Amino acid sequence: MVRSIAIYDTTLRDGTQGEGVSFSLQDKLNICERLAEIGIDYIEGGYPLSNEKDVAFFQQAQKLSLGKSLVCAFGMTRRRGMAAADDPGMQAMAKAGTPVCTIVGKSWDFQVTDILGVSLPENLEMIGDSIEFLGRGCEMIYDAEHFFDGYKANPSYALQTLTAAASAGAKWLVLCDTNGGSLPNEIADIVQATLQAVQGYDVQLAIHCHNDGDLATANSLAAIDAGCAQVQGTINGIGERCGNADLIAVMANLGLKRTGFELLGGRSLEPLTELSRYVYETANLQLRNSQPFVGQSAFAHKGGMHVHAVNKAAHTYEHLNPSLVGNERRILVSELSGRSNIVALTSKHNIASDRALMDKILAEVVRQENLGYQYEAAEASFDLLVRRCAGTFSPHFETIKYRVVAGDRDASTGCAFAEAIIKIRAGEHEFFDAAEGQGPVNALDAALRKCLGGVFPELEQMHLLDYKVRVVNGDAGTAARIRVSIESSDHKHMWGTIGVSENIIEASWLALIDAVEYKLLMHEGKLKPSEQQAVATPA
Amino acid sequence: MVRSIAIYDTTLRDGTQGEGVSFSLQDKLNICERLAEIGIDYIEGGYPLSNEKDVAFFQQAQKLSLGKSLVCAFGMTRRRGMAAADDPGMQAMAKAGTPVCTIVGKSWDFQVTDILGVSLPENLEMIGDSIEFLGRGCEMIYDAEHFFDGYKANPSYALQTLTAAASAGAKWLVLCDTNGGSLPNEIADIVQATLQAVQGYDVQLAIHCHNDGDLATANSLAAIDAGCAQVQGTINGIGERCGNADLIAVMANLGLKRTGFELLGGRSLEPLTELSRYVYETANLQLRNSQPFVGQSAFAHKGGMHVHAVNKAAHTYEHLNPSLVGNERRILVSELSGRSNIVALTSKHNIASDRALMDKILAEVVRQENLGYQYEAAEASFDLLVRRCAGTFSPHFETIKYRVVAGDRDASTGCAFAEAIIKIRAGEHEFFDAAEGQGPVNALDAALRKCLGGVFPELEQMHLLDYKVRVVNGDAGTAARIRVSIESSDHKHMWGTIGVSENIIEASWLALIDAVEYKLLMHEGKLKPSEQQAVATPA
Repeated sequence: MVRSIAIYDTTLRDGTQGEGVSFSLQDKLNICERLAEIGIDYIEGGYPLSNEKDVAFFQQAQKLSLGKSLVCAFGMTRRRGMAAADDPGMQAMAKAGTPVCTIVGKSWDFQVTDILGVSLPENLEMIGDSIEFLGRGCEMIYDAEHFFDGYKANPSYALQTLTAAASAGAKWLVLCDTNGGSLPNEIADIVQATLQAVQGYDVQLAIHCHNDGDLATANSLAAIDAGCAQVQGTINGIGERCGNADLIAVMANLGLKRTGFELLGGRSLEPLTELSRYVYETANLQLRNSQPFVGQSAFAHKGGMHVHAVNKAAHTYEHLNPSLVGNERRILVSELSGRSNIVALTSKHNIASDRALMDKILAEVVRQENLGYQYEAAEASFDLLVRRCAGTFSPHFETIKYRVVAGDRDASTGCAFAEAIIKIRAGEHEFFDAAEGQGPVNALDAALRKCLGGVFPELEQMHLLDYKVRVVNGDAGTAARIRVSIESSDHKHMWGTIGVSENIIEASWLALIDAVEYKLLMHEGKLKPSEQQAVATPA
Repeated sequence: MVRSIAIYDTTLRDGTQGEGVSFSLQDKLNICERLAEIGIDYIEGGYPLSNEKDVAFFQQAQKLSLGKSLVCAFGMTRRRGMAAADDPGMQAMAKAGTPVCTIVGKSWDFQVTDILGVSLPENLEMIGDSIEFLGRGCEMIYDAEHFFDGYKANPSYALQTLTAAASAGAKWLVLCDTNGGSLPNEIADIVQATLQAVQGYDVQLAIHCHNDGDLATANSLAAIDAGCAQVQGTINGIGERCGNADLIAVMANLGLKRTGFELLGGRSLEPLTELSRYVYETANLQLRNSQPFVGQSAFAHKGGMHVHAVNKAAHTYEHLNPSLVGNERRILVSELSGRSNIVALTSKHNIASDRALMDKILAEVVRQENLGYQYEAAEASFDLLVRRCAGTFSPHFETIKYRVVAGDRDASTGCAFAEAIIKIRAGEHEFFDAAEGQGPVNALDAALRKCLGGVFPELEQMHLLDYKVRVVNGDAGTAARIRVSIESSDHKHMWGTIGVSENIIEASWLALIDAVEYKLLMHEGKLKPSEQQAVATPA
């Protein structure tokens, strides 16, 4: 028997309470569309009472094509001593005009009396009134805040809050583990007992977990097994403190690791990896490489022994085919690389049989890593390292000297500037030129193109996509080594290069020249890069 | 009845297979000591056959004082067709001279025949011989690789590998979910069945999980409930792909969220937060703010509604007292800040009753955040923002102009340089000076001190601890905005400041001048910073 599980996404509301998360109005609309594309059932768009951006979101969301996905407005129960119709929160939610409204109410007696400052019966009225009022215009969902803590403290009251909501017309009762500290068996037992208690009502249960105990995914699955038919969370598990349940992990487990569940209307889960990265980039957060299912490292093999086996039979070291979630297998370079890793990565150079060269490359990788280099996201720089070790690399140009001058000429009016002055040699000729830019790397890049653009017109197609800076070996404060990673693109391919130095300008220059050299090699047909990273192995 | 659970740490072996993880020999020795300090029972130090650094580790580890913690050497079963005594791996492990040896062997029939290329009976001999040989000199542990997949495929063979190890003298049988894809109920069922099967042997079961399904902590706890008496993992869950089980989350759950377990010899778990950060810094990895229990955000409250409640009664929004794991509560500043957050953070300024000022501060925070500022790790810059909004801040100096010149004067020999030339006004006087440095920030810092050191001798005590750079709004490649965060210290206090600009030199300068201004305010007694971050609220 197949159970259909509804997916409720609160990336745009609960997710925004995560440290460092900030979405613009357009960001929210974009993410909303992406969520609808993959088939998310409910998209909680925001909290209209709390800020103008959310009010605008609900207005503009009405113009989006969202298929069967339903947008939900979120808010609290009406204030004490006020009719629902007069409550500003209720009015804001009604005005949002969404097909669904989600009301959060207190289900823990202590919270009712000590935080809200109302009596237990009054709280039940507040819940019922709010749901009934808004229910005239839309589908109602009741979020039972702190339900598990509330049930442990006073089970009968916690259940009364649910039945009050159900009686007033709520279609879903969401059991929230708001503090995130419940254990899987507690969740299972309480969900089971609750299911019994609400049997007579036309209502279903949903689960909303937080990750404070590192158990949000397990708790969500336990709740579903115990009878919840809807699961709430955020993409990538972003959210306050340790985050909400990671919907990606929950959906991948339900859809690919378990049987007997249907979700997302039966759609494929392949878009998950791209969706994950889109949300991180839009939220301006770092990707989490080790994230289950969709992280860059989720199917990245490093130990020499494992890579050998993976090349032989993928299921020996992978619990899942990465392509099912839109991810891919990667082979890493590191000091632990046995011959297998280097063989895999250098396969296109046809040097596998040359043991001395393989050893030389491995030794060079170890040496560079000790200086702070890491080739895992800089496969183009690794490619050049291989060629240098093999003695097959002829640089297209040499650096003679370079400098950047940057600062502010008149701080009282704000005259920030950056200029790069470089001298390089290409073939018989020396080129000297200067360029301005928003910042040092921008200026160096512009100056390099001015010098080389005449000799290598293909550089016109190339541009810098992304630029990361990381301090490595940070003991000495600002005298530490800096690793600059650059991602370049020419509309067909993308490639990563790095440079390390105690001087950020030097580190930037080293990463830049590798990027340009790699582009020139590609243009000459000396490489066969895949369409994405230079050496990713398709799953 | 209290069950004693042994903790087995493999940060220094399995952990090192994580992408981006690289420990020097001294790093490993330092971490080993820290693990022993908190009472970890078994510390897996490395894989002596695989690299010289690990061989050296085991030699030098003998000189460390580790209390009751036992160092373990790791390795594979002997090679086929070779006596254990002649096998290089066996010899390397014996030479390591550790009190414990951990042997990993194949427990999945497919792995035996297709990857190792030996017969099923021969593999049992390899396991038995290896354990017996090394067992003459130390306590033996058998890691049953891929045990859960192996049990599902051929339960009787998987169990035979365990009994072979037990018969040969292994004291612990470690059931490894090597691919990380098992579910908690599968783990529980299989552990239970295995416990039955090994009943007649003088042996105990251990569990070793990976986080590929986002279930490693849940799986570890399920295994312990089903009868495992030892749990393996790494600090922070670092490791290959999605990592190993996070020992911190496992220990915190066992010791603080559950009852009936004893671990770490009954020691306190307060050192966990510091240990977590120490391992990240040593591994040169970014801290994971949302990490359960020990992350910087684990007890960080952002939504206005939550902070109000937290200030009233901490247990309403925290599942655990943060100090039990050595962490602390934080109140965040953001655009969602209701009055409560700002009140909490500005409490020391005594302006809470000034609503107009509070609104002004909130508006300024929102404006700055839209430019890429984030005050969550820059409480000193936030403090200065409050003073600027209140009109109570008199800068000690003004910037007239500054520039950095950096690059390489002769790339063929490597002449990287950085010089800062600045002009500032302090009171009636203008100061113009220049300084060299390893890089631009270093040079600007040195120049600023040269200018101000005479007027403000207290600046001598101040130094830069840490320097982070992050690209914000990265769409435009190198023309994106850069956020520079600086952590400064004067031996008693630490404070964080930030600067944002499209020009990294300007961003660095802005962060630096805030750091200096804040130090000067502290010196004048105008602030009362706590001993750690300026505005952390003690739990």
